[in-house]
Amino acid sequence: MSFDLIIKNGTLVTASSTYRADIGIKGGKISAIAETLEGENIIDAKGKLVTPGAIDTHVHLEMPIGKYTSTDDFYTGTKAAAFGGTTTIIDFVETRENQTFVEALEMRKSLAKKRSIIDFGLHMTIMPHDIKKLDQVQAAVEAGCRSFKIYMAYGNRLNDGEILLAFEAIGEAGGLPIVHAENWDAITTLIDKNLNEGNRGPEWHTRSRPAVLEAEAVGRVIDLATYAGVPVHIFHISCPEAIERVKNARIQGHFVTAETCPQYLCLTDEVFEAEGVEGALPICSPPIRGIIDQMELWEYLSSESFHTISSDHCPFTVGEKAEGLDAFNKVPGGVPSIEMRFPAIYSRGVRDGFLTVNQWVDLCCTTPAWLFGLENKGDIQVGKDADLVVFDPEKTVVLSETSLHEEAGWTPYKNMSITGWPEVTISRGEVIVKEGKCYGEKGRGQFI
Amino acid sequence: MSFDLIIKNGTLVTASSTYRADIGIKGGKISAIAETLEGENIIDAKGKLVTPGAIDTHVHLEMPIGKYTSTDDFYTGTKAAAFGGTTTIIDFVETRENQTFVEALEMRKSLAKKRSIIDFGLHMTIMPHDIKKLDQVQAAVEAGCRSFKIYMAYGNRLNDGEILLAFEAIGEAGGLPIVHAENWDAITTLIDKNLNEGNRGPEWHTRSRPAVLEAEAVGRVIDLATYAGVPVHIFHISCPEAIERVKNARIQGHFVTAETCPQYLCLTDEVFEAEGVEGALPICSPPIRGIIDQMELWEYLSSESFHTISSDHCPFTVGEKAEGLDAFNKVPGGVPSIEMRFPAIYSRGVRDGFLTVNQWVDLCCTTPAWLFGLENKGDIQVGKDADLVVFDPEKTVVLSETSLHEEAGWTPYKNMSITGWPEVTISRGEVIVKEGKCYGEKGRGQFI
Amino acid sequence: MSFDLIIKNGTLVTASSTYRADIGIKGGKISAIAETLEGENIIDAKGKLVTPGAIDTHVHLEMPIGKYTSTDDFYTGTKAAAFGGTTTIIDFVETRENQTFVEALEMRKSLAKKRSIIDFGLHMTIMPHDIKKLDQVQAAVEAGCRSFKIYMAYGNRLNDGEILLAFEAIGEAGGLPIVHAENWDAITTLIDKNLNEGNRGPEWHTRSRPAVLEAEAVGRVIDLATYAGVPVHIFHISCPEAIERVKNARIQGHFVTAETCPQYLCLTDEVFEAEGVEGALPICSPPIRGIIDQMELWEYLSSESFHTISSDHCPFTVGEKAEGLDAFNKVPGGVPSIEMRFPAIYSRGVRDGFLTVNQWVDLCCTTPAWLFGLENKGDIQVGKDADLVVFDPEKTVVLSETSLHEEAGWTPYKNMSITGWPEVTISRGEVIVKEGKCYGEKGRGQFI
Amino acid sequence: MSFDLIIKNGTLVTASSTYRADIGIKGGKISAIAETLEGENIIDAKGKLVTPGAIDTHVHLEMPIGKYTSTDDFYTGTKAAAFGGTTTIIDFVETRENQTFVEALEMRKSLAKKRSIIDFGLHMTIMPHDIKKLDQVQAAVEAGCRSFKIYMAYGNRLNDGEILLAFEAIGEAGGLPIVHAENWDAITTLIDKNLNEGNRGPEWHTRSRPAVLEAEAVGRVIDLATYAGVPVHIFHISCPEAIERVKNARIQGHFVTAETCPQYLCLTDEVFEAEGVEGALPICSPPIRGIIDQMELWEYLSSESFHTISSDHCPFTVGEKAEGLDAFNKVPGGVPSIEMRFPAIYSRGVRDGFLTVNQWVDLCCTTPAWLFGLENKGDIQVGKDADLVVFDPEKTVVLSETSLHEEAGWTPYKNMSITGWPEVTISRGEVIVKEGKCYGEKGRGQFI
Repeated sequence: MSFDLIIKNGTLVTASSTYRADIGIKGGKISAIAETLEGENIIDAKGKLVTPGAIDTHVHLEMPIGKYTSTDDFYTGTKAAAFGGTTTIIDFVETRENQTFVEALEMRKSLAKKRSIIDFGLHMTIMPHDIKKLDQVQAAVEAGCRSFKIYMAYGNRLNDGEILLAFEAIGEAGGLPIVHAENWDAITTLIDKNLNEGNRGPEWHTRSRPAVLEAEAVGRVIDLATYAGVPVHIFHISCPEAIERVKNARIQGHFVTAETCPQYLCLTDEVFEAEGVEGALPICSPPIRGIIDQMELWEYLSSESFHTISSDHCPFTVGEKAEGLDAFNKVPGGVPSIEMRFPAIYSRGVRDGFLTVNQWVDLCCTTPAWLFGLENKGDIQVGKDADLVVFDPEKTVVLSETSLHEEAGWTPYKNMSITGWPEVTISRGEVIVKEGKCYGEKGRGQFI
Repeated sequence: MSFDLIIKNGTLVTASSTYRADIGIKGGKISAIAETLEGENIIDAKGKLVTPGAIDTHVHLEMPIGKYTSTDDFYTGTKAAAFGGTTTIIDFVETRENQTFVEALEMRKSLAKKRSIIDFGLHMTIMPHDIKKLDQVQAAVEAGCRSFKIYMAYGNRLNDGEILLAFEAIGEAGGLPIVHAENWDAITTLIDKNLNEGNRGPEWHTRSRPAVLEAEAVGRVIDLATYAGVPVHIFHISCPEAIERVKNARIQGHFVTAETCPQYLCLTDEVFEAEGVEGALPICSPPIRGIIDQMELWEYLSSESFHTISSDHCPFTVGEKAEGLDAFNKVPGGVPSIEMRFPAIYSRGVRDGFLTVNQWVDLCCTTPAWLFGLENKGDIQVGKDADLVVFDPEKTVVLSETSLHEEAGWTPYKNMSITGWPEVTISRGEVIVKEGKCYGEKGRGQFI
Repeated sequence: MSFDLIIKNGTLVTASSTYRADIGIKGGKISAIAETLEGENIIDAKGKLVTPGAIDTHVHLEMPIGKYTSTDDFYTGTKAAAFGGTTTIIDFVETRENQTFVEALEMRKSLAKKRSIIDFGLHMTIMPHDIKKLDQVQAAVEAGCRSFKIYMAYGNRLNDGEILLAFEAIGEAGGLPIVHAENWDAITTLIDKNLNEGNRGPEWHTRSRPAVLEAEAVGRVIDLATYAGVPVHIFHISCPEAIERVKNARIQGHFVTAETCPQYLCLTDEVFEAEGVEGALPICSPPIRGIIDQMELWEYLSSESFHTISSDHCPFTVGEKAEGLDAFNKVPGGVPSIEMRFPAIYSRGVRDGFLTVNQWVDLCCTTPAWLFGLENKGDIQVGKDADLVVFDPEKTVVLSETSLHEEAGWTPYKNMSITGWPEVTISRGEVIVKEGKCYGEKGRGQFI
Repeated sequence: MSFDLIIKNGTLVTASSTYRADIGIKGGKISAIAETLEGENIIDAKGKLVTPGAIDTHVHLEMPIGKYTSTDDFYTGTKAAAFGGTTTIIDFVETRENQTFVEALEMRKSLAKKRSIIDFGLHMTIMPHDIKKLDQVQAAVEAGCRSFKIYMAYGNRLNDGEILLAFEAIGEAGGLPIVHAENWDAITTLIDKNLNEGNRGPEWHTRSRPAVLEAEAVGRVIDLATYAGVPVHIFHISCPEAIERVKNARIQGHFVTAETCPQYLCLTDEVFEAEGVEGALPICSPPIRGIIDQMELWEYLSSESFHTISSDHCPFTVGEKAEGLDAFNKVPGGVPSIEMRFPAIYSRGVRDGFLTVNQWVDLCCTTPAWLFGLENKGDIQVGKDADLVVFDPEKTVVLSETSLHEEAGWTPYKNMSITGWPEVTISRGEVIVKEGKCYGEKGRGQFI
């Protein structure tokens, strides 16, 4: 047996096991796992963990939202991701009114293809103007896009009847609906009310989006999915009330899965107390909540009520954020978490005792791959893509806009100290990041 | 002691007791309850039950809905009610866009006052155009209208944000919100879908309003009430899925109460199999469901998960109903139950073993009075209004458009045999129905 | 109408209502309730509440337990009860090995009859040696004893198989099983362990009887009752864990009822910190628990998870209690609560906001009567026994061994201030206590 | 790389994955997993599944029970196991009264060692006479026995206090308690009652052990474990009522795991209808229940409420069974399932659609190894023992006493057709069964 690359002496960590073995890579695939492998091209992982490449199934790169575009493009975004150990992302595509799903998919795909340094997939957003195109869902699935995003909030939101129609079409095509669940009518009413009463600061963002209204929307969409007979994945759950509804639905036998994000696990609503634009930067939706909520989310992670942790990476610049200084609802929502996600969950989750290393890999790598049908990703197994991370469990990084490689120019995690960081990131057998340098070429990423 | 009227030898049935005693009435009130009372004006209730006058907290008399008006006016409707043992109704009032709550209340009150032969109250419907009038809620409460109807369905529906605003205003004024809970967007989508697929018969009315979408709306409005910190009463629950949500909310400590109606307890969706307009007549919303649903509703009544049984009396003529023969959604919805309600629940509930006589009185008389603040009604107790029914538990009546006194010209309960029927109905000490004759004068009813 | 006695101007409080009326009494019965009654013999209850006589369904008078006998006999015990507004007690009877149930019942009945000043019933304890007499259960029921006490703890305890046999016999006879539920094997093991480790003080009494082992026994006996198809009443629940099991069983449709006692509602385990014998006096089983448990019990009362509050009155003298000073398990268990129960629940329950006056009457009078089939007791209703209390809601009493009329010579409630106290206690129309004096003759009480 | 043995072309099935790879074995361990491996000694697994060797954590070989000894000894039993794909068993050891745990362990270990052809572990039974030896639990753990069996039934049963003491000792030593949970007092009472009433046939075995009494014992032991703060594993759950208690305890965060057995998944109480001794043969405890119970157990397996499937192999001869023909309680309890377990769960579980192949491997191999600390067993992973099965998913075997290799001389599964059967069984790299022949030498098994 000969190999293109061998990772020697590492401790392999998968969703189910932790053990010592060497990995032999050939043709971009994991070709052998053995007690000892020999070859010329060797990475020594002694004292390091070797994990599957992390998978971030919820990112927004160069995403146009109203008059803004999220700051990272497919190059800077995937580069930052790679520094953090992420080897696959799933971004989004939206149609224009007169565009088919497949046309939009091809356009977005070629944009991403040009710049991405890691592999990528795309979720199709079902917009209100897409309801008349639901007969194209099957074609979209066949074109490689099998997950469909539905908004219950914002201008793009579908009403409950449209959601039912979308669910049925997605279900028939064998796709997976994923949902941004918040009660929009109630939230906008509370926003208006608070603004009218002169409550305009960023802390009123969270106070206008109470937990029970997120939980309500989660419960509602589970009811709709139950009626339609489809599975459903809930994005970015931020509070115990919402995950409890998922948990109860699962006990009753419904196929519902749930995601949370680093911002809900590493930040609290104290961030809004910062002066000036600093306090407005961390605005995102669902909102960052209190310390009790955060601790309970960790407990739910610990007891395996969640299925994935993604970044919902969607930053805007300080200047863009500052335009909402006089009214919290004008701040474009979103924070940058694409790079810190995988190591942060290790540091706060595993080292602080909430998660085992295997749960960490499961939440960040294995279940994301399984849920979104990425058959060659997410595990260390002969035959899978050689997407791997050599992870130094003892390296400490203090987060800042300079230590990170994102383009937003700020980070809500400034001064957060993380112990455990990727040393080498490998994508399909190719070292794309090593010891702080990026070797991945723009455009090497593939659509999956 | 002297009395205007004495009811002798009856078996008194209240929500909590069954016992032998005489009742002395004076000045329209119950003045004494004693082992033996003597006087000149005596009704002998030997072998009969004596119950509080029944209270129907959900009726629609001469109610304009689109181009139709419900068939019974305040005279024929309250007369039919009195024949069935009902001595108090609560109907509805809606504002016109430029009318205050109190103005609308006064108008409707004087209309009802002119014709009603029994006492009546009014719920105020909060229409979308009323959201800007919420500062008038307090005035409405002070004018005697303390319950507020909110639609989650139909043209009058409020969205979830408007519901929150209404809940807050009602809560502050000490009022009680009551809700028609169905998921309108989802239902109209299913209606359109079914019509488009050529499914136009009345059986598709029920199939377009699945139980889970009623349960969803019930759960949602409980979430909204929980956030607003107000109690909430759910009208006309038609299925186990919906009452289960009420039950669970109560276990968690929320103040939520629930109503069901005779149509859900005495009919099943077999009614839609009748030929021609017969099959369309029983259309009402929420829809009449299957036999399993019906049996489970009785179980929930038996275990005291419901609080009131009302009629939702809202009939239209055969001619009006027939206009929807080519499309179930054009049939004006509503059935006549105002007269049969109290005896039907005795017959199907008590005699068939689901309810005790005390539960029957509780559901039809006592809790309705308590919930809507009718302090002088709903019980047999010294000081209360002498609203009483001498009820013959052995009298059998076969329902038909001729045996009943309603104006619709048809009844969905045709040929239903009921054992147990009022012999005498007394309102504030006055015999208004006796042995099949009505003695109540038009306009004698009072607003309460 | 003429009356032996009239109670005028009072505010009547029943389990379901609060209203102004006069009560006319004749032949020991409530003969009339009316707006106004006239007569010669009048008690003016102006400004006072008039309640049904309180019913204490769990007392131990002159009860032999090992070498001790509980301090109050049927005279001093019922006199103290009457001072506290209690007009009916239910005590216990046990057979000797060679005695039939009916023989034992007659003996105990005649003992009680001789001395009791209020009416009394008796529960039959099923002892291990009674298992072979289960064919006599029917005869006991016919002789007037329809409730049967089963111990899961102490020397008298039945094992689970014996409980099943007893349940079946009681169920067939239409009786009601009532249970002292604690896990005896586990508790005695913990007692031995604690004593062996030198933990001998009274605080180790509670620590040897953890809440989960009370809850376990409650859950177990509910399982056994479910299998046998009988209702079951659980005595003296002391902790949230145990009442939660009752609540859940009821949600699932089992007929299970629950009692708690003043000692669990007015005392906490701080009592054990007192020096010397003072710390040992309040030992009783189940044990007095912590302040959190106490507060939660009040919440469960408030949400109507409990059905009765009784005293479990079973005091011993200071000298007797002192014999266990060197080992908590030698202290004879039991406290005196027979007199303070009814006013204490008013003061701590109603005045402190946990209960309505109607819930207070329900827990202390009405449901106890209903549950144990005392058809003439527990309510203010024409035809019932004239067992009534004129209750002064503003009178403050500070509890002490001298202000109370019990014989134990001590009270665990010393210095507890109670606002609300009976002014007059009436039993079958006869004033037995008035303004601090007892007028009830020894032996006037009747077996019911 | 060179290997002692290579398994080529198989489809590897683990608890988490299904994929194509070759396995290289060296020194009894899995040395490499790779796309292609070459060597001299090759087993071609083309078209076959390759699974971890199955683990049976609940067998009784040459086990003395009263006057009987279970029929299979460590040789015939482990040989039959190997034919069925099982490469590890865990049997039991009991002390004599004056023997230490370690002495008993060594005796039993050497008995097993002499005859066993596969690896084995031993659970230590805690007998009543062992309660005074609980300070030896730590020594037993250190001697390699870390799981401790507790009976709540039979002569060996511990009472609840003894269970608490045992739990505490096991917990401190880091061991795992495992429990036979039935309510012995209640069951023996029902047995006596049924026998006395002349109900002596085998069908009365099940009727004397109702599901609720199994569930009660499961709930009770969970309460005791909760108090003691230890995990607990429940053996041989036979009914939905019992597994539901485990499920609820886990939802509340307790560490409770559950086993079921083939007899509860493949047989129903119809077996007792057979004539003569045939009807008595399948008697085992907990008893075989109805078809509805069986179907629900499969549902609970499907939704992952169970953790292991073991055999509870404990057969007796037809002659021994026949001694109880006149009274079901004299029949020695136990059935032979050691050989058919692994293929039967494939056939009835996977092929019939209740389980995935991965769930099958998880229940029969991986979780058993994890739960009982068999670190080198239960998975196909580099470094683990080369305990492997080449499994032919299409081979059909009809079970009978001749097609099976057990010694009982009968099987309750006679004529049951199973599709899917082991072709080769490999223990630590050694082929011990191949194409219907056993190559494993007596005594080659090791204690683990």
